[in-house]
Amino acid sequence: MKKISLLGATGSIGLQTIDIVLANPESFQLVAFSTGRNIEKTRELVTQIKPELVSVQQEEDARVLQQEFPHVSFTYGTKGLIEVATHPETTVFVNAVLGSVGLESTLAAIHMSKNIAIANKETLVTAGHLVMAEAKKYNAPILPVDSEHSALYQSMNGENPKAIERLILTASGGSFRDKTRAELQGVTVKDALNHPNWSMGAKITIDSATMMNKGLEVIEAHVLFDMPYDNIDVLLHRESIIHSMVEYHDTSVMAQLGTPDMRVPIQYALTFPDRIPLIGGKRLNLAEIGKLHFQEVDFERYHALKLAYDAGRMGGTILTAMNAANEAAVALFLEEKITFLEIEACIERVMDAHNNILLPDLETILHVDSETRKLVRNMVE
Amino acid sequence: MKKISLLGATGSIGLQTIDIVLANPESFQLVAFSTGRNIEKTRELVTQIKPELVSVQQEEDARVLQQEFPHVSFTYGTKGLIEVATHPETTVFVNAVLGSVGLESTLAAIHMSKNIAIANKETLVTAGHLVMAEAKKYNAPILPVDSEHSALYQSMNGENPKAIERLILTASGGSFRDKTRAELQGVTVKDALNHPNWSMGAKITIDSATMMNKGLEVIEAHVLFDMPYDNIDVLLHRESIIHSMVEYHDTSVMAQLGTPDMRVPIQYALTFPDRIPLIGGKRLNLAEIGKLHFQEVDFERYHALKLAYDAGRMGGTILTAMNAANEAAVALFLEEKITFLEIEACIERVMDAHNNILLPDLETILHVDSETRKLVRNMVE
Repeated sequence: MKKISLLGATGSIGLQTIDIVLANPESFQLVAFSTGRNIEKTRELVTQIKPELVSVQQEEDARVLQQEFPHVSFTYGTKGLIEVATHPETTVFVNAVLGSVGLESTLAAIHMSKNIAIANKETLVTAGHLVMAEAKKYNAPILPVDSEHSALYQSMNGENPKAIERLILTASGGSFRDKTRAELQGVTVKDALNHPNWSMGAKITIDSATMMNKGLEVIEAHVLFDMPYDNIDVLLHRESIIHSMVEYHDTSVMAQLGTPDMRVPIQYALTFPDRIPLIGGKRLNLAEIGKLHFQEVDFERYHALKLAYDAGRMGGTILTAMNAANEAAVALFLEEKITFLEIEACIERVMDAHNNILLPDLETILHVDSETRKLVRNMVE
Repeated sequence: MKKISLLGATGSIGLQTIDIVLANPESFQLVAFSTGRNIEKTRELVTQIKPELVSVQQEEDARVLQQEFPHVSFTYGTKGLIEVATHPETTVFVNAVLGSVGLESTLAAIHMSKNIAIANKETLVTAGHLVMAEAKKYNAPILPVDSEHSALYQSMNGENPKAIERLILTASGGSFRDKTRAELQGVTVKDALNHPNWSMGAKITIDSATMMNKGLEVIEAHVLFDMPYDNIDVLLHRESIIHSMVEYHDTSVMAQLGTPDMRVPIQYALTFPDRIPLIGGKRLNLAEIGKLHFQEVDFERYHALKLAYDAGRMGGTILTAMNAANEAAVALFLEEKITFLEIEACIERVMDAHNNILLPDLETILHVDSETRKLVRNMVE
């Protein structure tokens, strides 16, 4: 029985984590979780899961819920996230919040040597050097939840890391993969949210269309697997069946494949190094699919991916600036205040103007993050 | 430094094993090997390799070579094969002979707890129950050299065998994959020897065209990985890039891919669990390949594959009978004494007439083997 704490229970990854926990009551127990402002959903989850500790965003909500559920402890805000992450009974911490809000609680869970299942890209992208150093020091395994990094992790299982030659991240190409750059001028929010293979949140679907998502994944892969950027490739693969690959120095390539289903990498992070059956999982049928396609990625077409490689190679606070600029710009796009192509223009302007600081501490990272968001907002308002 | 003994040094697998050994003198030393009747090639190999022990087929050849190379020991015949297999200095035994001749020496090497790198299908197909039981008893790892089984082995590395749901062997479909059964009537030996992806010996190229090769591999997979036949699938994949796959009960599929090159599985069997760079290996470039195709296998089209599943499910001496009938029939086809489709007809007649004995001992297996070969010869002469 693994006892789990979860940040971001009402998000897409959070809800799927809960599905897995509830489908396997003999394997997992969700002891503590956090939600945001969706109190109706929080109420429902508390009833269903009967956790020991729940953190919400607002103090007022915590007070109301505490009266309704006297046998559960409620807390709130940033300190609430840390309380959930560090709950003494849990051995696995799932970080499934969006944005840099997950960073401090991840470090707190690492300091308690928990297994860290991480779906929160920003933590690794902006503070990868801090997180990995602490994880090593406190012997806390970092288990990726992203389907691509999980595929890499699975493809390295039992292997000598020194034999790895190259990581190959596959990319569907996103909702606009069949459009030229010229055709991207007029695309709408609605067009962008129509992802061909995965059903995901709005922000990540836009990131997938710009391929900033893949750029963040390249940086994550660099951080997680200590691999130089020159040895991390992105390969267009429209069907999203091969989730990623590891090439070894004997020319062997190990790959993880499957029907796109985020529950697979989530569950693997919870059960590693073992596997348990996926309840209701759809088996891969390659004969039915018939063909898998592969294509080189064009960095001129996917300019955001190039920006991410550039930032990754530089390292330092420019990673935070790039990530924050992207988050802010995507939000502006979703609010229909900027066009699709202005997202990457926005990121590039921020990067060009950035005074880079290498190996930043947590405080510096959080400062650059909030300053960059303001900067991007000011660009349009 | 691993010291190696090798049966079948002048065959395709044998020569590639030697390539690997000579390319990595700091990792490997070939101490003992066997050849057949190609004395010119044997002479060349002895000069190149400077082994301690060499076995040839004929006593006379051993005597001649002994005079030429007084610092090398020469031996011959079946006892010579066993001497090579059990050479006390070696820790790895590579069995790369064709046919049942490799069986006794494999058992002898197992009894010395050597690592057994096995390219000899017949040993596992006809005497799998004996080989695997002894291998377990004497703690001798059986490392597959076939590209498909090596792919399965690599895809299981670090995994819990209990989590395996299914083995998926890929098949190119052989030289006649685009022909209907009707079109197979008139095919010639020359047509059959033209394999699309792999350059191999004549016998295995014909087995690839009938798919008896894949049938033998299914049986080998059953033996090596203790997997029921219902959980072993064959998938047509014309490019031979995915060498085989393992499906787990969480719906994850692990696969090993690469440019077709037999040196990869040979070298992996020598270096397992580690890997070393493949000298002159061609890296996989999926973008260049563009597409991978998959298709269900049609058991009516590939009748020999169905026969192999049937024999496998029955177990016992029918496996030996089927394999011997196939070897004899393929030889007759190569001699242009029977047609291509008569190969499977021949196997089916032998199987229909066979009195099956379950769990046969070595003597019974060798007896059924030689009787079946005679029977098939008698069918046409």
